Amino acid sequence: MSGKGVFISFEGIDGSGKSTQARRLTNTLHDAGFDVVLTREPGGSAGAEEIRKLVLEGDPDRWSAETELLLFTAARRDHLERLILPALKAGKVVICDRFADSTRMYQGLRGADLREKVDLLHEVMIGHEPDITVLVDMDPEIGLKRALARQGGEERFEQFGADLQQQMRTGFLALAKAAPDRYVVVNGGRDEDTVADEIAGIVSSRLR
Amino acid sequence: MSGKGVFISFEGIDGSGKSTQARRLTNTLHDAGFDVVLTREPGGSAGAEEIRKLVLEGDPDRWSAETELLLFTAARRDHLERLILPALKAGKVVICDRFADSTRMYQGLRGADLREKVDLLHEVMIGHEPDITVLVDMDPEIGLKRALARQGGEERFEQFGADLQQQMRTGFLALAKAAPDRYVVVNGGRDEDTVADEIAGIVSSRLR
Repeated sequence: MSGKGVFISFEGIDGSGKSTQARRLTNTLHDAGFDVVLTREPGGSAGAEEIRKLVLEGDPDRWSAETELLLFTAARRDHLERLILPALKAGKVVICDRFADSTRMYQGLRGADLREKVDLLHEVMIGHEPDITVLVDMDPEIGLKRALARQGGEERFEQFGADLQQQMRTGFLALAKAAPDRYVVVNGGRDEDTVADEIAGIVSSRLR
Repeated sequence: MSGKGVFISFEGIDGSGKSTQARRLTNTLHDAGFDVVLTREPGGSAGAEEIRKLVLEGDPDRWSAETELLLFTAARRDHLERLILPALKAGKVVICDRFADSTRMYQGLRGADLREKVDLLHEVMIGHEPDITVLVDMDPEIGLKRALARQGGEERFEQFGADLQQQMRTGFLALAKAAPDRYVVVNGGRDEDTVADEIAGIVSSRLR
């Protein structure tokens, strides 16, 4: 890859297993001899993690949708500058659990006006897309059951009901349809090994 | 003013006395019977003050110019939504020590490319200007001497030398020239009472 790495993002609704699959692909590629960095958003660099804390901790209504968008974009810019771009420049494979499409999807659900702002901020302040985005697609009923079973902290992204999860799935599928060259859509409703094998197969063939 | 307040910002280089003059105008208008709110940027609302801390504390190089711009814009959006706009809606006079022109000036000094981003973020995410901006103009030599004498915390805005202060003065004067209807430029090199009287006179005549 001669000094130019590969940027892979994972997207999907809560409980879709995308974080597990991102970790599994990291291990698989590492074992195959690639230099791989696994990271996540929001966060991923020291500064971005501080911004993440500021956004996700405390009263969920403390920030408006617009302020939250600015804070997430600040975190993404820091993550991009400090971790993603230097790693790509060094020829590494960067695997990121959520990237800009999560913002497009979540903030887009709040209305077309906000979605326009998302696109504009991305274009002006971020300006980078992954080479490959793996969408771990799944029936929200299954995803929600898995997410509730986990009961981790940072509930802001997990406190939504099934209707909203359905909108999110539809949102991600629309993003995938709009960027078919970048997107790989896999059925996350199957057992973990099967999904991991399929993702590893598709990504490996693209990396060769 | 029937439910529509007046938004006044103060701008000027370090040590120009703008904070003192903002406070004095607040007192004068309050004594004249106006309902006045004095605030400042970066910060001014609970959320914006937290973002201010994140930006100004720690290593000055921890954020890039672009990330800093996003964080300051997030702080401004919060300040605007939570304090400035509600106060204006309630018919109050809002006096703000620094507003968007400080960002235009400071970030603009870092290059035309960044200044374009400043303008775009302002247009899309802020979209409000003060009714009156008081520029307390001053010879940087005097301003710098005053600033160093104060030696407060948050040195990031005070650690610049005389050359940069001269560029800042020029930057503010250019902004004033570009928005003559909004700007009031006063000579801050005179004694404090004289400057305060002049500002009070001009602003009062505009409020009537």
